[in-house]
Amino acid sequence: MAPDPRLAATPEPPYWVVLFTSRRTPADPEGYEKMGEAMAELAAKQPGYLGIESTRDAEGVGITLSYWASEQAIHDWKRVSAHTEAQRRGHAGWYEDFVLRVAKVERAYTKATSPRAGL
Amino acid sequence: MAPDPRLAATPEPPYWVVLFTSRRTPADPEGYEKMGEAMAELAAKQPGYLGIESTRDAEGVGITLSYWASEQAIHDWKRVSAHTEAQRRGHAGWYEDFVLRVAKVERAYTKATSPRAGL
Repeated sequence: MAPDPRLAATPEPPYWVVLFTSRRTPADPEGYEKMGEAMAELAAKQPGYLGIESTRDAEGVGITLSYWASEQAIHDWKRVSAHTEAQRRGHAGWYEDFVLRVAKVERAYTKATSPRAGL
Repeated sequence: MAPDPRLAATPEPPYWVVLFTSRRTPADPEGYEKMGEAMAELAAKQPGYLGIESTRDAEGVGITLSYWASEQAIHDWKRVSAHTEAQRRGHAGWYEDFVLRVAKVERAYTKATSPRAGL
Protein backbone atom coordinates (compact mmCIF):
# COMPACT_ATOMS: atom_id res chain seq x y z
CA MET A 1 0.00 0.00 0.00
CA ALA A 2 1.42 3.43 -0.95
CA PRO A 3 1.95 5.70 2.05
CA ASP A 4 -0.93 8.12 2.65
CA PRO A 5 0.41 11.63 1.92
CA ARG A 6 -1.81 13.13 4.64
CA LEU A 7 -0.15 10.99 7.34
CA ALA A 8 3.37 12.11 8.31
CA ALA A 9 6.14 9.52 7.88
CA THR A 10 7.97 10.34 11.08
CA PRO A 11 11.13 8.53 12.25
CA GLU A 12 11.41 6.34 15.34
CA PRO A 13 10.66 8.28 18.54
CA PRO A 14 11.72 10.27 20.43
CA TYR A 15 10.88 13.48 18.56
CA TRP A 16 8.73 16.53 19.28
CA VAL A 17 5.28 17.69 18.22
CA VAL A 18 3.44 21.01 18.28
CA LEU A 19 -0.31 20.43 18.69
CA PHE A 20 -2.39 23.37 17.50
CA THR A 21 -6.16 23.05 18.00
CA SER A 22 -8.24 25.99 16.81
CA ARG A 23 -11.61 27.27 15.74
CA ARG A 24 -11.58 29.59 12.76
CA THR A 25 -13.57 32.80 12.52
CA PRO A 26 -15.49 33.15 9.24
CA ALA A 27 -13.05 35.96 8.28
CA ASP A 28 -10.86 36.01 5.20
CA PRO A 29 -10.92 32.39 3.98
CA GLU A 30 -8.70 33.11 0.94
CA GLY A 31 -6.05 34.98 2.91
CA TYR A 32 -6.04 32.27 5.54
CA GLU A 33 -5.68 29.45 3.05
CA LYS A 34 -2.89 31.22 1.20
CA MET A 35 -1.01 31.87 4.44
CA GLY A 36 -1.50 28.26 5.55
CA GLU A 37 0.04 26.95 2.34
CA ALA A 38 2.94 29.41 2.54
CA MET A 39 3.63 28.45 6.17
CA ALA A 40 3.53 24.70 5.37
CA GLU A 41 6.09 25.25 2.59
CA LEU A 42 8.29 27.41 4.79
CA ALA A 43 8.12 24.99 7.74
CA ALA A 44 9.24 22.13 5.48
CA LYS A 45 12.47 24.03 4.75
CA GLN A 46 13.31 24.53 8.45
CA PRO A 47 16.11 22.50 10.09
CA GLY A 48 14.65 19.67 12.15
CA TYR A 49 11.27 19.59 10.38
CA LEU A 50 9.89 16.03 10.27
CA GLY A 51 6.37 16.41 8.86
CA ILE A 52 2.90 17.85 9.31
CA GLU A 53 -0.67 16.54 9.67
CA SER A 54 -3.63 18.89 9.48
CA THR A 55 -7.39 18.69 9.20
CA ARG A 56 -10.36 21.01 9.73
CA ASP A 57 -14.06 20.15 9.79
CA ALA A 58 -17.14 21.96 8.48
CA GLU A 59 -17.64 23.69 11.86
CA GLY A 60 -14.24 25.34 11.53
CA VAL A 61 -12.52 23.26 14.19
CA GLY A 62 -9.06 22.17 13.08
CA ILE A 63 -6.04 20.36 14.45
CA THR A 64 -2.54 20.79 13.04
CA LEU A 65 0.32 18.59 14.25
CA SER A 66 3.85 19.55 13.22
CA TYR A 67 6.69 17.20 14.03
CA TRP A 68 10.23 18.31 14.89
CA ALA A 69 13.56 16.67 15.70
CA SER A 70 14.19 18.82 18.79
CA GLU A 71 12.80 21.54 21.05
CA GLN A 72 15.39 23.88 19.55
CA ALA A 73 13.92 23.34 16.07
CA ILE A 74 10.46 24.35 17.42
CA HIS A 75 11.96 27.38 19.13
CA ASP A 76 13.70 28.49 15.92
CA TRP A 77 10.61 27.97 13.75
CA LYS A 78 8.47 30.03 16.14
CA ARG A 79 10.84 32.97 15.55
CA VAL A 80 11.08 32.87 11.73
CA SER A 81 9.84 36.34 10.79
CA ALA A 82 7.24 35.34 8.19
CA HIS A 83 5.87 32.87 10.73
CA THR A 84 5.75 35.51 13.46
CA GLU A 85 3.63 37.64 11.13
CA ALA A 86 1.31 34.67 10.43
CA GLN A 87 0.93 34.15 14.19
CA ARG A 88 0.05 37.82 14.64
CA ARG A 89 -2.66 37.65 11.97
CA GLY A 90 -4.00 34.41 13.38
CA HIS A 91 -4.28 35.92 16.83
CA ALA A 92 -5.84 39.15 15.55
CA GLY A 93 -8.49 37.81 13.20
CA TRP A 94 -8.38 34.25 11.94
CA TYR A 95 -8.92 32.29 15.15
CA GLU A 96 -11.92 32.49 17.43
CA ASP A 97 -9.94 30.46 19.93
CA PHE A 98 -6.95 28.13 20.03
CA VAL A 99 -4.78 25.95 22.24
CA LEU A 100 -1.13 25.30 21.43
CA ARG A 101 0.73 22.50 23.15
CA VAL A 102 4.30 21.24 22.84
CA ALA A 103 4.92 17.57 23.57
CA LYS A 104 7.61 14.91 23.29
CA VAL A 105 6.58 11.81 21.36
CA GLU A 106 7.67 8.68 23.19
CA ARG A 107 6.00 5.87 21.21
CA ALA A 108 4.37 5.45 17.80
CA TYR A 109 2.57 2.76 15.79
CA THR A 110 1.12 2.71 12.30
CA LYS A 111 -1.63 0.46 10.99
CA ALA A 112 1.11 -1.70 9.42
CA THR A 113 3.31 -1.93 12.52
CA SER A 114 0.51 -2.24 15.06
CA PRO A 115 1.55 -5.23 17.17
CA ARG A 116 -1.89 -6.86 17.17
CA ALA A 117 -5.40 -6.52 15.73
CA GLY A 118 -6.14 -3.81 18.28
CA LEU A 119 -4.01 -0.67 18.24
CA MET B 1 -15.75 34.58 26.26
CA ALA B 2 -17.32 31.20 27.10
CA PRO B 3 -14.89 28.29 26.70
CA ASP B 4 -15.18 26.52 23.34
CA PRO B 5 -16.55 23.01 24.05
CA ARG B 6 -14.50 21.56 21.16
CA LEU B 7 -11.22 22.67 22.79
CA ALA B 8 -10.15 20.60 25.81
CA ALA B 9 -9.71 22.52 29.07
CA THR B 10 -6.58 20.68 30.18
CA PRO B 11 -4.69 21.44 33.42
CA GLU B 12 -1.18 22.84 33.66
CA PRO B 13 1.40 20.51 32.04
CA PRO B 14 2.89 18.01 32.37
CA TYR B 15 0.26 15.52 31.21
CA TRP B 16 0.00 12.96 28.41
CA VAL B 17 -1.64 12.87 25.00
CA VAL B 18 -2.55 10.11 22.55
CA LEU B 19 -2.42 11.45 18.96
CA PHE B 20 -4.48 9.36 16.54
CA THR B 21 -4.32 10.43 12.88
CA SER B 22 -6.37 8.35 10.48
CA ARG B 23 -8.05 8.11 7.12
CA ARG B 24 -11.48 6.51 7.14
CA THR B 25 -12.67 3.95 4.62
CA PRO B 26 -16.14 4.71 3.20
CA ALA B 27 -17.43 1.67 5.13
CA ASP B 28 -20.19 1.72 7.73
CA PRO B 29 -20.55 5.44 8.57
CA GLU B 30 -23.43 4.84 11.05
CA GLY B 31 -21.65 2.06 12.93
CA TYR B 32 -18.49 4.12 13.08
CA GLU B 33 -20.22 7.24 14.37
CA LYS B 34 -22.12 5.28 17.00
CA MET B 35 -18.93 3.59 18.21
CA GLY B 36 -17.08 6.92 18.27
CA GLU B 37 -19.73 8.45 20.52
CA ALA B 38 -19.78 5.42 22.80
CA MET B 39 -15.98 5.45 23.12
CA ALA B 40 -15.88 9.18 23.87
CA GLU B 41 -18.44 8.65 26.66
CA LEU B 42 -16.57 5.64 28.03
CA ALA B 43 -13.17 7.39 27.91
CA ALA B 44 -14.59 10.31 29.88
CA LYS B 45 -15.38 7.91 32.75
CA GLN B 46 -11.84 6.51 32.90
CA PRO B 47 -9.48 7.45 35.75
CA GLY B 48 -6.99 10.07 34.60
CA TYR B 49 -9.04 11.27 31.62
CA LEU B 50 -8.47 15.00 31.01
CA GLY B 51 -10.28 15.72 27.75
CA ILE B 52 -10.55 15.06 24.03
CA GLU B 53 -10.28 17.05 20.80
CA SER B 54 -11.33 15.53 17.50
CA THR B 55 -11.95 16.64 13.95
CA ARG B 56 -12.30 15.00 10.51
CA ASP B 57 -12.45 16.67 7.10
CA ALA B 58 -14.46 15.88 3.97
CA GLU B 59 -11.64 13.68 2.61
CA GLY B 60 -11.98 11.40 5.62
CA VAL B 61 -8.74 12.45 7.29
CA GLY B 62 -9.19 12.92 11.02
CA ILE B 63 -7.12 13.67 14.10
CA THR B 64 -8.20 12.75 17.62
CA LEU B 65 -6.23 13.94 20.62
CA SER B 66 -7.06 12.42 24.00
CA TYR B 67 -5.45 13.86 27.11
CA TRP B 68 -4.49 11.82 30.17
CA ALA B 69 -2.97 12.44 33.59
CA SER B 70 -0.40 9.64 33.30
CA GLU B 71 1.00 6.91 31.06
CA GLN B 72 -0.72 4.39 33.31
CA ALA B 73 -4.11 5.95 32.53
CA ILE B 74 -3.41 5.50 28.78
CA HIS B 75 -2.30 1.93 29.37
CA ASP B 76 -5.47 1.14 31.34
CA TRP B 77 -7.80 2.76 28.77
CA LYS B 78 -6.19 0.82 25.94
CA ARG B 79 -7.17 -2.41 27.72
CA VAL B 80 -10.82 -1.61 28.58
CA SER B 81 -12.67 -4.43 26.82
CA ALA B 82 -15.24 -2.36 24.90
CA HIS B 83 -12.35 -0.21 23.69
CA THR B 84 -10.33 -3.25 22.62
CA GLU B 85 -13.30 -4.34 20.51
CA ALA B 86 -13.54 -0.83 18.97
CA GLN B 87 -9.82 -1.01 18.13
CA ARG B 88 -10.32 -4.39 16.47
CA ARG B 89 -13.16 -3.09 14.30
CA GLY B 90 -11.18 0.03 13.42
CA HIS B 91 -8.23 -2.05 12.32
CA ALA B 92 -10.37 -4.49 10.38
CA GLY B 93 -12.60 -2.15 8.43
CA TRP B 94 -13.01 1.48 9.44
CA TYR B 95 -9.51 2.82 8.83
CA GLU B 96 -7.67 2.87 5.52
CA ASP B 97 -4.57 3.86 7.45
CA PHE B 98 -3.62 5.36 10.81
CA VAL B 99 -0.74 6.50 12.99
CA LEU B 100 -0.99 6.44 16.77
CA ARG B 101 1.54 8.35 18.86
CA VAL B 102 1.90 8.77 22.63
CA ALA B 103 3.51 11.99 23.85
CA LYS B 104 4.14 13.96 27.03
CA VAL B 105 2.87 17.54 26.96
CA GLU B 106 5.50 19.91 28.36
CA ARG B 107 4.03 23.36 27.61
CA ALA B 108 0.66 24.80 26.64
CA TYR B 109 -0.85 28.18 25.77
CA THR B 110 -4.37 29.27 24.91
CA LYS B 111 -5.43 32.31 22.93
CA ALA B 112 -6.20 34.02 26.25
CA THR B 113 -2.90 33.12 27.93
CA SER B 114 -0.70 33.55 24.89
CA PRO B 115 2.15 35.74 26.16
CA ARG B 116 2.14 38.11 23.20
CA ALA B 117 0.28 38.91 19.97
CA GLY B 118 2.08 36.00 18.30
CA LEU B 119 1.61 32.52 19.74
